[in-house]
Amino acid sequence: MSAGKFLATLGGTRFPTPPVWLMRQAGRYLPEYRAVRATTRSFLDFCYTPEKAVEVTLQPVRRFGLDAAIIFSDILVVPDALGQKVWFEEGEGPKLEPLTDPAQFGRLSRVRLIEHLAPVYRAIALARAALPQETALLGFAGAPFTLACYMIEGSGSRDFAKVKLWAYRHPDSFGLLIDLLAESVVDHLAYQVEAGADAVQLFDSWAGLLPEEQLFRWSLEPMVRIAQALKARHPMVPVIAFPRAVGPAALMYRRPDAFAALSIDTGIGAHWAAQELQPHICLQGNLDPMMLVAGGAAMKREARRILDKLAHGSFIFNLGHGVLQQTPPEHVAELVETVRQWTPSLA
Amino acid sequence: MSAGKFLATLGGTRFPTPPVWLMRQAGRYLPEYRAVRATTRSFLDFCYTPEKAVEVTLQPVRRFGLDAAIIFSDILVVPDALGQKVWFEEGEGPKLEPLTDPAQFGRLSRVRLIEHLAPVYRAIALARAALPQETALLGFAGAPFTLACYMIEGSGSRDFAKVKLWAYRHPDSFGLLIDLLAESVVDHLAYQVEAGADAVQLFDSWAGLLPEEQLFRWSLEPMVRIAQALKARHPMVPVIAFPRAVGPAALMYRRPDAFAALSIDTGIGAHWAAQELQPHICLQGNLDPMMLVAGGAAMKREARRILDKLAHGSFIFNLGHGVLQQTPPEHVAELVETVRQWTPSLA
Repeated sequence: MSAGKFLATLGGTRFPTPPVWLMRQAGRYLPEYRAVRATTRSFLDFCYTPEKAVEVTLQPVRRFGLDAAIIFSDILVVPDALGQKVWFEEGEGPKLEPLTDPAQFGRLSRVRLIEHLAPVYRAIALARAALPQETALLGFAGAPFTLACYMIEGSGSRDFAKVKLWAYRHPDSFGLLIDLLAESVVDHLAYQVEAGADAVQLFDSWAGLLPEEQLFRWSLEPMVRIAQALKARHPMVPVIAFPRAVGPAALMYRRPDAFAALSIDTGIGAHWAAQELQPHICLQGNLDPMMLVAGGAAMKREARRILDKLAHGSFIFNLGHGVLQQTPPEHVAELVETVRQWTPSLA
Repeated sequence: MSAGKFLATLGGTRFPTPPVWLMRQAGRYLPEYRAVRATTRSFLDFCYTPEKAVEVTLQPVRRFGLDAAIIFSDILVVPDALGQKVWFEEGEGPKLEPLTDPAQFGRLSRVRLIEHLAPVYRAIALARAALPQETALLGFAGAPFTLACYMIEGSGSRDFAKVKLWAYRHPDSFGLLIDLLAESVVDHLAYQVEAGADAVQLFDSWAGLLPEEQLFRWSLEPMVRIAQALKARHPMVPVIAFPRAVGPAALMYRRPDAFAALSIDTGIGAHWAAQELQPHICLQGNLDPMMLVAGGAAMKREARRILDKLAHGSFIFNLGHGVLQQTPPEHVAELVETVRQWTPSLA
């Protein structure tokens, strides 16, 4: 396993500047990604073609020399592998044949999960072999609540009424789905680690929909359970939790017994995060992806503001959410340079 | 001016149970609203017909005996009155002819603002006369940043790229727009108060888009400026600030020198709010509107959880956002009863 700045930071070592990578760093904003993507029609087929997934995983590392790569895949490979119908429509995002009744849970089965996801593990093995030793490779999965959102809504949604009403009105059957997903995610993450992933990130992208008590039950508790089950199988692998848009409830996720780091979105101020979260856990984040689109002096100033607040502690520089499609690639190069050239201000 | 539980609470008096009203309590979920709404085709014409605006303002008070009414209107009457083209398409939300260049700011003019909005002030005078004395009447306005979002995007948006990029790249011209809006909002609120509004609420619905430094500049600072300018003209009128989805940055809005209360969205946990915000300022909120759709035991339990945390301090019960269209009206009646029957638990 590679050491590298990224893993060493998660292990508690400090460097003059923090490691840097970007969520969704492999993607449509890169012309070389679009060229590879154009060779396969279906997005899921693309994810399941190891050579192509590896190529786009490596592209941003080659271009920008980032400290970590994240395997190119999608959180919805898990519902797909469980037997739910999942497809992607051009420019519209994911579509699923939605679960509308607990009776349909019976159609979901973990029996073929690992077999179905074997191409992801092959891609990880190939990517790990191809990456420079000092570059960490991340595996990832969607957290159970976020997967349940897509599985019950059948797509993104404005208000996520179906999944929230199900959770609020029928917590027992909702809990069964969350448990099935948690067990599936543990397996999926464990196989990614066994294939060569150096660390994993759990994305709870829709956690911010839930008020605190529901958040504890449907987001935090399953995420902790997953991280601890993974730790039982792979004690050394760091788990990064990303509960997006949870606001002050990020306090609940300071769980070093489960997570090696907490990824914070742009809605969590760096000053507050430095005071309330960082003394307890390594942080990752949180430049507004729109600042990366804006570029120039505004971006550099905002990146330095974040560094001034957080880079004195245990910290991985990242965005608050994924790279946007309209991002000029040269802004990413400028951002990486800004992070690497940062020096603590004397103030 | 009426005393009433709502205003007395803002003035610092405590009652055994808090006052209660709901954002967007006049709206499509009520059959009697839909009946009146059906008599006018254009939504803005509907807002500008005082008799109809008054009727729908009163409906939820008649039905549920709430402690406050909010005048039926829309935040986009301000851009409309400034001369921007604004219209509403059935089921699609607001549309505006977007501002795409600072040169177009010259088309906006405050000269006719008050004349254009006279029907809103007439509606307020009529509503105040028709309401029971103990029921408070709120006026309201959109905060400058949220108005700018609609004025530059031309509608709602997934990522609000146009307005954010304008603010990040061209803060000087963006500041001119914010200043024009702040001055317009002060006038609009002052006239609402002069017509009979007992208190006003400032909605910064899209504040959560901004990272903290930008939030301070484009949301908090203009809102404070507006509240203080209004106070200079009407020293006794309470201003409630609602910066939606700002997370831990809600701490910045503890400004009793400007705001009488802070309305918190569902993303701010009641426990944290009670510890960090309520010692400094009266709070309003924050039941998940989807809990009101769910109804039943889950809703009552969640309402009581919020009351247990917040009703020992200075507090107005409300939702974390507006009533959803699919809300069964009988759930509102149950919620009001739950709030009025609350007794502090002995734990």
